[in-house]
Amino acid sequence: MADADGDETPDVHAEIMSATRDYVGRRVERLDAPPSSIEFLRKYVCRNSPFVCANATKDWTAHERWQTKEGFMECCGGPQTKVEAAATRDGRGDAIEYTLGRRVFVEPATMQTTLDDLFSSFEREPKRDEPVLYLSSQNDNLRRVPELRGLLAHCGGESGGLAFADEAFGCVPDAKNVWVGDDRSVTSYHRDYYENLYTVISGTKVFSLRPPCDYPDMRFVKDCAPGRYVFERDPDGRPKWRINVDISAPKVSWSAVDVDPSGKPIHGGEDELLYRAGRPRECALEVEVHSGETLYLPAMWFHRVRQRGLTIAVNSWYDQSFDDRYATRMALDRLADERPTSGPHGLNV
Amino acid sequence: MADADGDETPDVHAEIMSATRDYVGRRVERLDAPPSSIEFLRKYVCRNSPFVCANATKDWTAHERWQTKEGFMECCGGPQTKVEAAATRDGRGDAIEYTLGRRVFVEPATMQTTLDDLFSSFEREPKRDEPVLYLSSQNDNLRRVPELRGLLAHCGGESGGLAFADEAFGCVPDAKNVWVGDDRSVTSYHRDYYENLYTVISGTKVFSLRPPCDYPDMRFVKDCAPGRYVFERDPDGRPKWRINVDISAPKVSWSAVDVDPSGKPIHGGEDELLYRAGRPRECALEVEVHSGETLYLPAMWFHRVRQRGLTIAVNSWYDQSFDDRYATRMALDRLADERPTSGPHGLNV
Repeated sequence: MADADGDETPDVHAEIMSATRDYVGRRVERLDAPPSSIEFLRKYVCRNSPFVCANATKDWTAHERWQTKEGFMECCGGPQTKVEAAATRDGRGDAIEYTLGRRVFVEPATMQTTLDDLFSSFEREPKRDEPVLYLSSQNDNLRRVPELRGLLAHCGGESGGLAFADEAFGCVPDAKNVWVGDDRSVTSYHRDYYENLYTVISGTKVFSLRPPCDYPDMRFVKDCAPGRYVFERDPDGRPKWRINVDISAPKVSWSAVDVDPSGKPIHGGEDELLYRAGRPRECALEVEVHSGETLYLPAMWFHRVRQRGLTIAVNSWYDQSFDDRYATRMALDRLADERPTSGPHGLNV
Repeated sequence: MADADGDETPDVHAEIMSATRDYVGRRVERLDAPPSSIEFLRKYVCRNSPFVCANATKDWTAHERWQTKEGFMECCGGPQTKVEAAATRDGRGDAIEYTLGRRVFVEPATMQTTLDDLFSSFEREPKRDEPVLYLSSQNDNLRRVPELRGLLAHCGGESGGLAFADEAFGCVPDAKNVWVGDDRSVTSYHRDYYENLYTVISGTKVFSLRPPCDYPDMRFVKDCAPGRYVFERDPDGRPKWRINVDISAPKVSWSAVDVDPSGKPIHGGEDELLYRAGRPRECALEVEVHSGETLYLPAMWFHRVRQRGLTIAVNSWYDQSFDDRYATRMALDRLADERPTSGPHGLNV
């Protein structure tokens, strides 16, 4: 690729994106049964390659008990159990918004609710500006939130992991979370510094996956002020939203790939902005994880997550390995930051 | 790092070299016992990290039988058993030489000899221009060379591998070789596209190891014509050496790190040329593998190998994984080729 000054630099990022897909594949592998711990390490963790498998959590009674909302609620104390849900105006938690002409990284409001109200919110006809709720606290909620601990017995118990993964990683998960939401909630592209095992109990999760080498095409916006939704009702009970922007806090870096430059959120699309800004160099690996299936999402893979209907899922995060792969990745990301690619892939938002 | 035109490019290679050592360490880990197959994958193969361990081949009768040359010879048919040894003038097989002002990549001569003559050659006082012999054919010699197959029973048998590694990699080795040489033979820096398990039976091997990210400092010379030593004696029995250069064959790429630009070979030195050309950015990991110990040398690590006294060793090569790590490595190496770093690390030989 030629710079403005005509200097020829090989487009190393494009080469890696293409070659990685040549080796990892352009589809996510599907297995009928979980791998042994050795196969898991050899074929997936070492190779940094995702898979979806059936029957990895056959022993979890959650698969029966949580198929009805009544069953789920019963496992954690009944319909009046209080939980903290994320609340957003449009279903997009942890995403970039345009506010007063600035890019703001907005986290959801938190809302105390009952399980009954949470499930009811998924059944109501959506009304403009009414909060979209998503139980998605990601704080090891199954083990740390007393109201949710009753669920643990139904999804593998206290230690938290899947047997083949506990054995492979040689530890139990750092965090184990339950997620309850519907198709209005979308998680924008991001990456975690954890190995992730993600089991769907009911409903369907739709993941768009991109390997870590896609960083230069994820169009990270570095200068986002952090903010948070605040939800209130006016005296007539009408919903009111504000965004509290913390202008003195350190700036946040977040992917702009699924934000519309006009400021309008995009729902349900497949990498629309990337297409709009110019054809992406490589495609995402799209994968549906159905009830009873488990996704292995390797550390540092970018992922965007949607849901089909009311979806209950449980995930376990295990520490990732910090090694030459990680060292190389971090340096390459800095290279991409310091020499952003020109043309349609540039940071033009 | 500033280019000639003042363009600031982050020195991504230097960053990766330093950060890799922060994670992998600056010393080779030593273990008292072999890891389990799962530990091996988790802590070493996944992390691309070498180790030396004792007691990984306790069941090999080679450790008793091959401690004397008589014992070794007896295991493969006696002193008159014919073998093919590599023969060089100075102990450097597979290395760059200067011939008629050109850089030539020279492979050793091959010499039919008996085991008795091979071992005798290690006992004789070295005489100028007499061939340095090294049994180092690397062609799966333990399984493919009928005269050497008798050794197999004493070093793990037909399948060829170490139990924890066979189980971890899910296969038997592609090749299993025996190496017999002394401290005059030096193997110059190179890398193999195999996972390597290297067991010393008697003597000591000294490895200088550099992780794959050190490629830019290995000063690969791309335009070497391939050649081969030819050894003859004149009518008076005096040794005569020629180098047959194949000027029509494709050029070879080889590391120049342990070649003296004056054309004089360097023996026993620790990265002398690298020091002479400018301080290397990072140090090699030096490790001695003693009798009874096994080195895990991960795929694509650069290694330079010397020996202390008569040394007998057995290694097993397993297929490496071709994944995102490999894709990234190959692209980064091309980047280093196309934008060689300026200053003391440049390709100035």
